[in-house]
Amino acid sequence: MNAEIIAVGSEMLTAGRLDTNSLFITEHLNSLGIEVSAKHVIGDDCDRLVTSIRRALSDADIVILSGGLGPTEDDLTRDAVAQALGCSMSADAGILAAIERRFRIMKREMPEINKRQAMILDGAEILPNDRGTAPGQWRTVVSGAGQKVVLMLPGPPSELKAMFTRECLPRLAKIAPPTAIHTVVLRVTGVSESHLDQTIAPIYMGRANLTTTILAHEGDLQVRLRAQCDTIEAAIALSEEVAALAAEAIGEHVYSRDGESLESLIGKRLMDAGQTLVVAESATGGGLAERITSVPGSSAYFVGGYVTYSRRMKTELLGVPETLLVQFGAVSKETAQAMAEGAKTAAHADWAISITGNAGPSTDGDKAPVGTVYIGVAGPDGIEVTHRVWPVNDRGRVRAFAVQAALDLLNRRLRVG
Amino acid sequence: MNAEIIAVGSEMLTAGRLDTNSLFITEHLNSLGIEVSAKHVIGDDCDRLVTSIRRALSDADIVILSGGLGPTEDDLTRDAVAQALGCSMSADAGILAAIERRFRIMKREMPEINKRQAMILDGAEILPNDRGTAPGQWRTVVSGAGQKVVLMLPGPPSELKAMFTRECLPRLAKIAPPTAIHTVVLRVTGVSESHLDQTIAPIYMGRANLTTTILAHEGDLQVRLRAQCDTIEAAIALSEEVAALAAEAIGEHVYSRDGESLESLIGKRLMDAGQTLVVAESATGGGLAERITSVPGSSAYFVGGYVTYSRRMKTELLGVPETLLVQFGAVSKETAQAMAEGAKTAAHADWAISITGNAGPSTDGDKAPVGTVYIGVAGPDGIEVTHRVWPVNDRGRVRAFAVQAALDLLNRRLRVG
Repeated sequence: MNAEIIAVGSEMLTAGRLDTNSLFITEHLNSLGIEVSAKHVIGDDCDRLVTSIRRALSDADIVILSGGLGPTEDDLTRDAVAQALGCSMSADAGILAAIERRFRIMKREMPEINKRQAMILDGAEILPNDRGTAPGQWRTVVSGAGQKVVLMLPGPPSELKAMFTRECLPRLAKIAPPTAIHTVVLRVTGVSESHLDQTIAPIYMGRANLTTTILAHEGDLQVRLRAQCDTIEAAIALSEEVAALAAEAIGEHVYSRDGESLESLIGKRLMDAGQTLVVAESATGGGLAERITSVPGSSAYFVGGYVTYSRRMKTELLGVPETLLVQFGAVSKETAQAMAEGAKTAAHADWAISITGNAGPSTDGDKAPVGTVYIGVAGPDGIEVTHRVWPVNDRGRVRAFAVQAALDLLNRRLRVG
Repeated sequence: MNAEIIAVGSEMLTAGRLDTNSLFITEHLNSLGIEVSAKHVIGDDCDRLVTSIRRALSDADIVILSGGLGPTEDDLTRDAVAQALGCSMSADAGILAAIERRFRIMKREMPEINKRQAMILDGAEILPNDRGTAPGQWRTVVSGAGQKVVLMLPGPPSELKAMFTRECLPRLAKIAPPTAIHTVVLRVTGVSESHLDQTIAPIYMGRANLTTTILAHEGDLQVRLRAQCDTIEAAIALSEEVAALAAEAIGEHVYSRDGESLESLIGKRLMDAGQTLVVAESATGGGLAERITSVPGSSAYFVGGYVTYSRRMKTELLGVPETLLVQFGAVSKETAQAMAEGAKTAAHADWAISITGNAGPSTDGDKAPVGTVYIGVAGPDGIEVTHRVWPVNDRGRVRAFAVQAALDLLNRRLRVG
């Protein structure tokens, strides 16, 4: 069973907008064993919409439209579906009353154009919208072999998600083929995406009932292994078998086998050990602390951070000797070491991470080339400084890679300890 | 003149992946006066691809495909385009030699499958790839009325962007209709997207030759006014006229009229005044410092930041009295004030921003409800503390909103001074 998703709206075709609703829909369709075979974005043009809906219905069992259910002339989804299916529409008195009520609560009169939102396709089921005025619609279409479904959902993500979860998933579950799905997520860092894929492709390629996806985000990689079988036991066995083989092939670069993030894993390890962490960063400007504190409850082990952007702060707060900064430069192994040691001492913490580097675009008079970063990790068993260079010439990416590498280094130390 | 964009690859149809290449392509097509009339994502299925390419060619003047040019069996774009156009392909000796050379440099033998990447459509122009092995292809198609173009680009964003900019834009500029475009970007904060749209819709609605887009990202709003006219003078006049009316209607919430970001604007104002800034944050955990230092050259005015996650750090580094923390709590107006004053003094800075709050999900024993944030701004002319509550129950969003609000407050103070 397959589905196509059509996002409707000219604003979705501009350079600043992406259709993210389809990710949410895809995730839930996949969990029911329904594949998404194509996605489309179509502007507010009735003829194009009618053509797109007819094409999608000829190719897929389920066609899901999002957006274009507002009250204005530009909101054409209702008309286009009616035209594509050759069926008529009529105003629903209950919906109309509900819209009028919403306006009364806001102490405003309902504009005439809002009546359009009460137009329902003949034969469609109404999907109530508890977060906005436009109801969704579920319309079954009898086609040659069996039945197909056209689904109309509102565009605003909060309205769409609530409606899809409450109204559509139970209906879709009834028509979805009986199937069981199990997904294992390996999280990996310290290797490139292409190297990772080359390593594990021989393991996952050609496996029946298994879908493998590799996601990469600024040095953080996810291998998603999704098995779809007749029974849940078979799906678990298949995905776990492939995950074990893949993890063995990737080796030490796998940091978690249950999808857990690096920052969350570090938090658990620190809590288990009853230890605390402090950070001192310059090049990453707070990004390392920000990532660590993105974990709820991180105040239990994270003492705080020093964003020592000036030399004076490095000296006054962390006790990095002025002479050392002059002799070796702010971007140096010696400075990274002094920052980590200074932060650990000043904050009375068990662990300290330091980052100093040059994220670019200019070298700021420093001798170190753009992309050069030194990372120090000081712990109960001593200090280690690592030198990395990312020749990407992209300030944001160098900073993100440096944060990722720093977390990876700490996690490896915690894993050993 | 219109274009359709087809992103190719089954991985682009999974729940974790979005086609972002199309945003880059759209922006550049629009700058040439070429509209994007539809976007599609199609999996690695040759029949579906052939159908999609034929449909797009029947609807659009330019069809741009991204992805599916790799060496594996799954990479079907070349074959699908050849089939859709009914033309043959042959291996290009120069491309083949270049791929072999790339592998030699990496000291590896070229796998047999990489030969597929040298297959070029008869009649196509080769678009060299300086960042990967797969060349792009530009194929003109004679159709009834005139000529259409099919463009094949590699999927990895860095390869696509470099190739599109260098090879495609000059070719597209030659066939694009003569037109002049001018865009004005108003940047706005402190109002909701719906309120903003309601305010300015009467101004931009129904204007010929004007496209208006509102983008919202965690409290930061952009109003993009793009005029497309016969002459550049007309385009500038139209977009500037509407921008002036919109800016007047929005009032003090407009912080820049040339697209400049809040953090960059703050940087310029501090540099002009020869003043420095320090931050002290707990709830945002480094996110405020991270955003300020995302601006290249920020070390000229940003002294550094204190991420005071523990009470001890608030006391030791910022001199927040222990008794004050006990009496009013860490999330309080009094603590925010003491943090800003303490940071300003400790770092010898002209300005200090403090943030203390509860981003959730739990209240950590604090009395302040989730979403409560206090922001202090201390400057040469005194200190001000603002209290905000974002009842969104989303740790990441509360933190991002708090950073945005803090930057807004500082910018307003700097604007007045």
